Amino acid sequence: MLKGNMVIGQSGGPTAVINQSLVGAVLAARQSDSIHRILGARHGIKGIMEADFIDLSTQSEAKLEQVAATPAAALGSVRLKPGRQECERVFDVFRQHNVRYFFYIGGNDSAETAHIIAEMAKAASYDFCTVHIPKTIDNDLKVTDHCPGFASAARFVALAFMGDDCDNRALQGVKINVVMGRHAGFLTAASALARHADDDGPHLIYLPERVFSVTRFQQDVRRVMDKLGRCVVAVSEGIADANGHPIATTGERDSHGNIQLSGTGALGDALSAHVKAAFGDQAVRVRADTFGYLQRSFPTIVSEVDAREAREVGQFAVNHATATGEPASIAIRRVSNEPYQSEYFSTPLSSVAREATTMADDYIHPDGNDVTEAWLNYVRPLVGTLPTPGRL
Amino acid sequence: MLKGNMVIGQSGGPTAVINQSLVGAVLAARQSDSIHRILGARHGIKGIMEADFIDLSTQSEAKLEQVAATPAAALGSVRLKPGRQECERVFDVFRQHNVRYFFYIGGNDSAETAHIIAEMAKAASYDFCTVHIPKTIDNDLKVTDHCPGFASAARFVALAFMGDDCDNRALQGVKINVVMGRHAGFLTAASALARHADDDGPHLIYLPERVFSVTRFQQDVRRVMDKLGRCVVAVSEGIADANGHPIATTGERDSHGNIQLSGTGALGDALSAHVKAAFGDQAVRVRADTFGYLQRSFPTIVSEVDAREAREVGQFAVNHATATGEPASIAIRRVSNEPYQSEYFSTPLSSVAREATTMADDYIHPDGNDVTEAWLNYVRPLVGTLPTPGRL
Repeated sequence: MLKGNMVIGQSGGPTAVINQSLVGAVLAARQSDSIHRILGARHGIKGIMEADFIDLSTQSEAKLEQVAATPAAALGSVRLKPGRQECERVFDVFRQHNVRYFFYIGGNDSAETAHIIAEMAKAASYDFCTVHIPKTIDNDLKVTDHCPGFASAARFVALAFMGDDCDNRALQGVKINVVMGRHAGFLTAASALARHADDDGPHLIYLPERVFSVTRFQQDVRRVMDKLGRCVVAVSEGIADANGHPIATTGERDSHGNIQLSGTGALGDALSAHVKAAFGDQAVRVRADTFGYLQRSFPTIVSEVDAREAREVGQFAVNHATATGEPASIAIRRVSNEPYQSEYFSTPLSSVAREATTMADDYIHPDGNDVTEAWLNYVRPLVGTLPTPGRL
Repeated sequence: MLKGNMVIGQSGGPTAVINQSLVGAVLAARQSDSIHRILGARHGIKGIMEADFIDLSTQSEAKLEQVAATPAAALGSVRLKPGRQECERVFDVFRQHNVRYFFYIGGNDSAETAHIIAEMAKAASYDFCTVHIPKTIDNDLKVTDHCPGFASAARFVALAFMGDDCDNRALQGVKINVVMGRHAGFLTAASALARHADDDGPHLIYLPERVFSVTRFQQDVRRVMDKLGRCVVAVSEGIADANGHPIATTGERDSHGNIQLSGTGALGDALSAHVKAAFGDQAVRVRADTFGYLQRSFPTIVSEVDAREAREVGQFAVNHATATGEPASIAIRRVSNEPYQSEYFSTPLSSVAREATTMADDYIHPDGNDVTEAWLNYVRPLVGTLPTPGRL
């Protein structure tokens, strides 16, 4: 049986429950005879290259529980796809510290990093097990039914739309809310959970899985305004035209070369301008909010299912690694929808790495401006019970 | 004793607890022999002019409690300063419906409307009592210690900064968050409640009470970045230069002729550009979020003190009116800070109408980029206990 030290790191965009996975893994590792020291890497791969570790073997359980209940990545995160040279450096550090277990909590990029390092270990015949622990508010990992982190962000989005729909009833007009999601519309689609009555918003939902037409959008908004005198719109930050060009950005790019979508109000302001243009001289109150980073790191807005599963997926990863020594990514299988029940399983790193997934066609309304009942059935048990707005 | 029907309306920007005041007033009115029918005006003054009322005499208590727990204005709100002709129309409707009590829940503009109508009733020798019930997330009403609605919005802002500071620790850089508040910085200043450790954000707080200098802002951010490698900034949407010009807007105006500040990312994006310019060729991750309407209408994020006081201020207004028949606005007096205790009192409508207030000098740090301990002592008991972030 593989024995030695363990490194755990967090990568990519934080979530409200990523620290649950961290603590789940750490507490499981403390139960294992195979794992000696538990090292937390500061800022993921970057911290490993610099051997910048926090010893997690000795922290009190009370401290760990407090960390588990805190949003964002307690170890620090990083957006870095390591190249060959960087992976070799990581490897040197692992050997120096007799690291035999490596757990990387993140999305598909992190799974790819874990995969590369697992392949290097194999090539070097270094006895070593690396496991990817899934995390992403985008919910876009392959194989798994859903991703830890998504349901808490979805809960934030659903509550935000519920409150904003009440606000828009009180002071009527067109309200556009921009939700995170570059390629996958899962989080934007969760806005539909805000609806109780027939005329509740969001009245229109635009996902990156469908081509966005400004003309069509203007027509949709006019139609809803004619009917209800108000219109709440959910739009994914990643919507793009038929050529795949984003509708509006600041032109900035992140370290992966991706165009910056979050942390700017550019898209909301552009869509507002399109709505105003659609109404011409007719005075219509139009406002746009971009939910931004609040969606992924808001304290106290956590889905119970999400918090529990994030914890358990961390535990499962460690137990899988110590029991089998097999590199893997951990995934969630939905066993039952009512009552909701799930279980965990391992899947090859290659099945999750690199490519991500998007919303299934049967979750998207044929008109391309709403979701379906099948989507609501999928997402509702994950997000949990929501308050029902009182109406006079 | 004045006997007849009652009208209640809601006005201006909604809050998370404005419906508590509505329900407090309605339930108190049901206990009174002086008040017969209780009419809720749809969209404030606008609904009164059209005699568009909801009968609140007969709604079940369970329904009312559900409404009380729902954010935004359940009766609908309005942004309308009625002129002479509109007030006469309101008056005609009041006489037609034998309305002897009028309660208007809102800010200083609503107090002014109530004041005008009270003066008209006096001039017409119409036996009538109008009471203003205070409400505003801006916390900018005169006389009162604080305003119902503020503390819940402040709680949202504090939690949002707490989560966002964790997020910024995980993925470092400059993060700018734009908070509501055109002339008063109270809500932006509440961001300071997010701090626990010395290096917690927000690291800089800019309020509309002080002239905003872009150069000074750039220097401040550079200084914090040099020290901590990251910087979280709280900035009020209303910041302006030495000439009183807003730093950035879309140029749109609302129905009061005010420049539109909320519902756009223009200011955040402009400040991001200033920060990037300050760092020149040095690559720095800069993001800006504009919290927008979520601040005032987010379900479940409610201060307990705020919910209770909003309810009680509505009750007090009705009890004051039926006991004295005197037109008034209701205000809150802080009796004790530890433990927090408050009481209610009436103040002349003229003392609250029209002009608003701003933050006292001793709440603002002499450097103009932070708040003081006195401010924290003022705001902490209103917002209530906040979670403590867990750190490794």
